[in-house]
Amino acid sequence: MSDELRYHVDGDLVPASDATVSVDDRGFRYGDAAFETLRAYGGTVFAWDDHVERLERTCESLSLEHGLLAADLRSRIDETLAANDLADAYVRLSITRGVQPGKLTPQSDVDPAVVIYVKPLPRGGLEGDPVWDGPATVQTVETRRIPDEAIPAAAKTHNYLNGILARAELEGDADEALMCDLEGAIAEGATSNLFFVRNGTVHAPSTDGSVLPGITRGIVLEMARDAGISVREGRYEPAAVLEADEAFLTNRTWELRPIATVDGHAIGGGPVTDRLAGLYDERVEESCYRSDNGH
Amino acid sequence: MSDELRYHVDGDLVPASDATVSVDDRGFRYGDAAFETLRAYGGTVFAWDDHVERLERTCESLSLEHGLLAADLRSRIDETLAANDLADAYVRLSITRGVQPGKLTPQSDVDPAVVIYVKPLPRGGLEGDPVWDGPATVQTVETRRIPDEAIPAAAKTHNYLNGILARAELEGDADEALMCDLEGAIAEGATSNLFFVRNGTVHAPSTDGSVLPGITRGIVLEMARDAGISVREGRYEPAAVLEADEAFLTNRTWELRPIATVDGHAIGGGPVTDRLAGLYDERVEESCYRSDNGH
Repeated sequence: MSDELRYHVDGDLVPASDATVSVDDRGFRYGDAAFETLRAYGGTVFAWDDHVERLERTCESLSLEHGLLAADLRSRIDETLAANDLADAYVRLSITRGVQPGKLTPQSDVDPAVVIYVKPLPRGGLEGDPVWDGPATVQTVETRRIPDEAIPAAAKTHNYLNGILARAELEGDADEALMCDLEGAIAEGATSNLFFVRNGTVHAPSTDGSVLPGITRGIVLEMARDAGISVREGRYEPAAVLEADEAFLTNRTWELRPIATVDGHAIGGGPVTDRLAGLYDERVEESCYRSDNGH
Repeated sequence: MSDELRYHVDGDLVPASDATVSVDDRGFRYGDAAFETLRAYGGTVFAWDDHVERLERTCESLSLEHGLLAADLRSRIDETLAANDLADAYVRLSITRGVQPGKLTPQSDVDPAVVIYVKPLPRGGLEGDPVWDGPATVQTVETRRIPDEAIPAAAKTHNYLNGILARAELEGDADEALMCDLEGAIAEGATSNLFFVRNGTVHAPSTDGSVLPGITRGIVLEMARDAGISVREGRYEPAAVLEADEAFLTNRTWELRPIATVDGHAIGGGPVTDRLAGLYDERVEESCYRSDNGH
């Protein structure tokens, strides 16, 4: 049996190297597709309902009526995890608008391409190691986040050049780009949301601007409030991060990842970051426990 | 012999229905790819040097060093036209950043996917019919053009959701969306540049903002100046178009296409539009003549 990963493409499990889409698919021609990045812990997709909800929002904002039920998508993911014998994994789900007659104008009759990617990704958790290699080295960049008026900030789509251009600006050992909005306020990382802690209060750029409302971001804010930690969402200048006591990034893959430096200024994690990371790990453990006892 | 079109994918001619790219290709995952839309007239690609130059600019702004020579790309296009027995055709050339290890951050070592699409597209020209079905019905939309600070306006990439969202707003029989920049000045159509004529002067939104410097746009401006027609590039409110004597759109496929209405207000082409369209047709005829006598 081959060790090659198998992806799920349009209903079939295929070796990753044979997994293709038509060059006429709008996902390829225009990046006209929605996606979600998910984690499986102990064989169970984490925060599935949140992902379903966001995927729906993305597709709504693209007027992409793919006609697929959440339960169908979920069983394709479960099938893919099982076929690859993966319990702890990175999962990506993409839904395109498919091939359509005519040119750019989207048609309402959609035959979507559905692609599920998986890859082993060990769980860190309470007693393991985090998935990131080390704290993040962050650099502020010139590329500005696309404003909500041009492409809805809450939509996760295959139009990812904005983040790629930001990452292409990175120098030295920097591994995440911190992007501002057009007015110069901090928005987010190329693939992560930003948090910083000052005098015990957790600060996060608010999502009424060009910021994607990350699911991990939402969980962290909720956990902080539940734990009685003071939380503020607002608009901040990059200088506010440089003066912070602690700072960290969140995304589905990294979970909570402390920021070592921003533009060379040392910041680091600290007690609040550690506490939130611990709470997050507990929540992941609980989700596995719940699923062990019947999903 | 099948009538199915053949595309050129990574060096091979393949039936369009078998033309695919890997789901791991960055062109699919992120829209991380450059493209050009070209026309072949009488078997010859029109304004090839202009397309090569713009493609280079796009790839430079994406830091996409594909390592392919223009002559190589040109012979792939010529091969594709010949294989499909096409003299007058629509041609699309796409170059992606290919499959790369790691995630979003682009690597300098690129193994690009190169796709050439063709499709028959009869030449209108001096004695034929125009390629568009009729004058354009234009609607101003809410979706704003992506600002240059977020994605360079001059880059033609597979990140085309901005134009798709604009087109998705269209109602009734409208077939092109007129987009403004964030400040509310007219930028361009979803796939076309805008011109309007007032008191004998040709006006065009300037390309220092969020406007793609279309190749057809450039040719039209040059022809107008050469013909002694007064030309102005600037920033205009949508109201300026509604009050125009004539208005038209340009792109590689449509060439010059008169605007029938904007938001229901009748405008139409007219003597200046007709004159410029005639000059454009002559230029196309000349390019075929030149190529008949040895390219």
